[in-house]
Amino acid sequence: MFTRDIYIARRQKLKETIKSGVLLFLGNELSAMNYVDNTYTFRQDSTFLYYFGIDQEGLVAIIDLDEEKEIIFGDELSIDHIVWMGNLPTLKERADQVGAETRPSGSLAEALKGRKVHYLPPYRPEHQIKLANWLGKSLNEVDSGVSEEMIIAIGEQRLIKGVEEIEQMEEAASITADMHLAAMRYAKPGMTEAQVAAKVREVALADGNDVSFPIIATINGQTLHNHYHGNTISEGDLFLLDTGASNKMHYAGDMTRTFPVGPKFSEQQKDVYTIVLEAFYNSLNILKPGINYKEAHFAACETIFEGLKSLGITKGDTGEAVANGAHALFMPHGVGHLLGLDVHDMENFGEEYIGYAGEKKSSQFGLKSLRLGRMLKPGFAVTIEPGIYFIPELIDLWQAESKHGEFINYAKLADYRSFGGIRIEEDAVVTDSSYKVLGKPLAKTIQEVEMERAKAF
Amino acid sequence: MFTRDIYIARRQKLKETIKSGVLLFLGNELSAMNYVDNTYTFRQDSTFLYYFGIDQEGLVAIIDLDEEKEIIFGDELSIDHIVWMGNLPTLKERADQVGAETRPSGSLAEALKGRKVHYLPPYRPEHQIKLANWLGKSLNEVDSGVSEEMIIAIGEQRLIKGVEEIEQMEEAASITADMHLAAMRYAKPGMTEAQVAAKVREVALADGNDVSFPIIATINGQTLHNHYHGNTISEGDLFLLDTGASNKMHYAGDMTRTFPVGPKFSEQQKDVYTIVLEAFYNSLNILKPGINYKEAHFAACETIFEGLKSLGITKGDTGEAVANGAHALFMPHGVGHLLGLDVHDMENFGEEYIGYAGEKKSSQFGLKSLRLGRMLKPGFAVTIEPGIYFIPELIDLWQAESKHGEFINYAKLADYRSFGGIRIEEDAVVTDSSYKVLGKPLAKTIQEVEMERAKAF
Repeated sequence: MFTRDIYIARRQKLKETIKSGVLLFLGNELSAMNYVDNTYTFRQDSTFLYYFGIDQEGLVAIIDLDEEKEIIFGDELSIDHIVWMGNLPTLKERADQVGAETRPSGSLAEALKGRKVHYLPPYRPEHQIKLANWLGKSLNEVDSGVSEEMIIAIGEQRLIKGVEEIEQMEEAASITADMHLAAMRYAKPGMTEAQVAAKVREVALADGNDVSFPIIATINGQTLHNHYHGNTISEGDLFLLDTGASNKMHYAGDMTRTFPVGPKFSEQQKDVYTIVLEAFYNSLNILKPGINYKEAHFAACETIFEGLKSLGITKGDTGEAVANGAHALFMPHGVGHLLGLDVHDMENFGEEYIGYAGEKKSSQFGLKSLRLGRMLKPGFAVTIEPGIYFIPELIDLWQAESKHGEFINYAKLADYRSFGGIRIEEDAVVTDSSYKVLGKPLAKTIQEVEMERAKAF
Repeated sequence: MFTRDIYIARRQKLKETIKSGVLLFLGNELSAMNYVDNTYTFRQDSTFLYYFGIDQEGLVAIIDLDEEKEIIFGDELSIDHIVWMGNLPTLKERADQVGAETRPSGSLAEALKGRKVHYLPPYRPEHQIKLANWLGKSLNEVDSGVSEEMIIAIGEQRLIKGVEEIEQMEEAASITADMHLAAMRYAKPGMTEAQVAAKVREVALADGNDVSFPIIATINGQTLHNHYHGNTISEGDLFLLDTGASNKMHYAGDMTRTFPVGPKFSEQQKDVYTIVLEAFYNSLNILKPGINYKEAHFAACETIFEGLKSLGITKGDTGEAVANGAHALFMPHGVGHLLGLDVHDMENFGEEYIGYAGEKKSSQFGLKSLRLGRMLKPGFAVTIEPGIYFIPELIDLWQAESKHGEFINYAKLADYRSFGGIRIEEDAVVTDSSYKVLGKPLAKTIQEVEMERAKAF
């Protein structure tokens, strides 16, 4: 459990890394949808949750390294609010539970005056405005004044998941598996993608959780950034579901399955699925401390390129093809990313600090979309999510210039033009010697998936 | 249907009201949840939808009254985007469908330079920042520089719903009724509030719609701003569900029902329910052109005060009690609000312009929460939502000072302390002679509600 001591220890560790100044933690506000008082579901800032744990809007916290104080700035509810909101724990009570003191929000600007203030890159515009006001800076100065020292210190700390966090991530992954299982047992020809997505969302919400990112639920798996749910699904289609739970403590799950809309995969679908599944295992099995995550990426790329040879789609030397990026016609994305409180953990900190830790990122098509390219340590949590896609727009683009013609049989691709895409994804944490997959098992082989699909009919 | 001509005609009407300068319409952006690229569901700005209809992020439009131009500023997708997003209609194609021309987003600032620019009150911080940049103003100057002329002209236009809008609102209300019906037939003792709310959300999402505001689904109906869904529901509890659909065109429904968690209402619950239902009808029946909406509010307040007399809770002259605000112990909110593209239609424009149109708003407890207090015209769409609540914190507060002691039997209230709250709400549009309730009929009488509840058991 997330005891008072855990929050105190987390802040203590951070205090041992940065020695002076004020560390500023901006909690989130409610975000307006179509007018100020009609808001999206509140999501607290992940770093605020990590160090101060209070899941409530309108708070800002500081760790004052010079004065040795840990203070949450915020206001208690008035009696008017209590009448409308009910009797809630006071802010002081909540702050006590995480070992911090409280002060009225109006006293924050004064507390920052003339101090060296460290802050993380703001990802919401209201944070930019607040920082500008508190620090007497322009908005541009706010953006350029972020603390590299704070980014790195917090990044390194949040990267290593504690046992209490892995417990939460196991739960998030298990809820995610339940969401997938519900879809597999529910989807039928004639439904819309929206109906399946709605069922998935229901499972997430019913137990007080929600989704960690917008649901991808599509018969056009080849369209990678696809949040359209308007298609009717038919026998013969592949259904790609990429979804994850955000559990009550806001840890993220993120899994993908691809299943036939009918009860069975076609032979062509089985061929490609088998390659993706092999790529998944070959990539996953790379994970261990001391290995660069890029190796897991390349393992998937090579398996995919090699596998597609057996279908007559690719040709030539696999190592050379992957080094040149020819496989990226079929898998233009990276094999996975960091996972934690954020589904792309700490993405707002900047990939150069977190995903790459100063290592140079490739600009090659495909590889440039890999979000993690650093040495793994025990406690890193990652996804593994290889895929094979037949993207007509991309095929046409490459074919027009015979790109990587020595590695790709473009003529053969005509048979796959309307294939769609397949992706398989799970979540794992790096252990002392290898890795552990998170969450309860979920149908993954062709046989397992078809067994679950049979229950929908 | 929403033809090109409708959008042209809407803009034409606006152009006849405001004669010079540039009218600026800020479309919305995707809003960051926990980092820039993990976003909430996109919600286009309602006024942008009304005049320009394009449901896509990253757009800004102007009506240049001096140059007689109607331009949407935005950028076409690059081939990179098409690879990831699929082949979508171009911006130019979409703009053609609403009769506007397009220009690259980068040319907007130039188009505004040195012009008299009218804009509406910004309700998202990124809009404040953009306006400050485009207009060379400080954020404070942006807030104080909104165009009263534009607010009033658009307000008066959007207030009168066209036939094509009423069609959409009928649909939104019917989906809303389906959401309620699903809950009534699903909720059972032992479930959590979250399970019921999740079912409601599923119904909204399954047909490609969503909710128009966060779902209130609670056994603590007396807590008015209640979005907590963590309670387990039990025989004897009342379940208050206040929810609405936002349909594909983003018109809002907003209905409330209160039903017993067991199959039947208790006698005490029936007594109070009967009063609320009577208040609902007495308020609804007031609606017609030329009447001030306050009359509908007072009709509900008087029915409630009068009805509670029969239970021994209130006493004295009803007219005097309501004039003094004594009823507000039981109904501290207003009887309803405007409805349209926004569930509180145009709330971001400012109540003084829209809900009250210059009429003075009361500061009396209860009445100060009434969001609409002006004369009704044909085409106004409103909710009617009276309720009776027993709010322990408020009862204690008033009782301690014997507030309105001549009208309230505080001793009697002990029997109702854990009663909770009941609200009944429907949507209606003012017609030429009276009103029309929107959407398909939904169980509302005690008998009808108990019939639906029987299906859950």
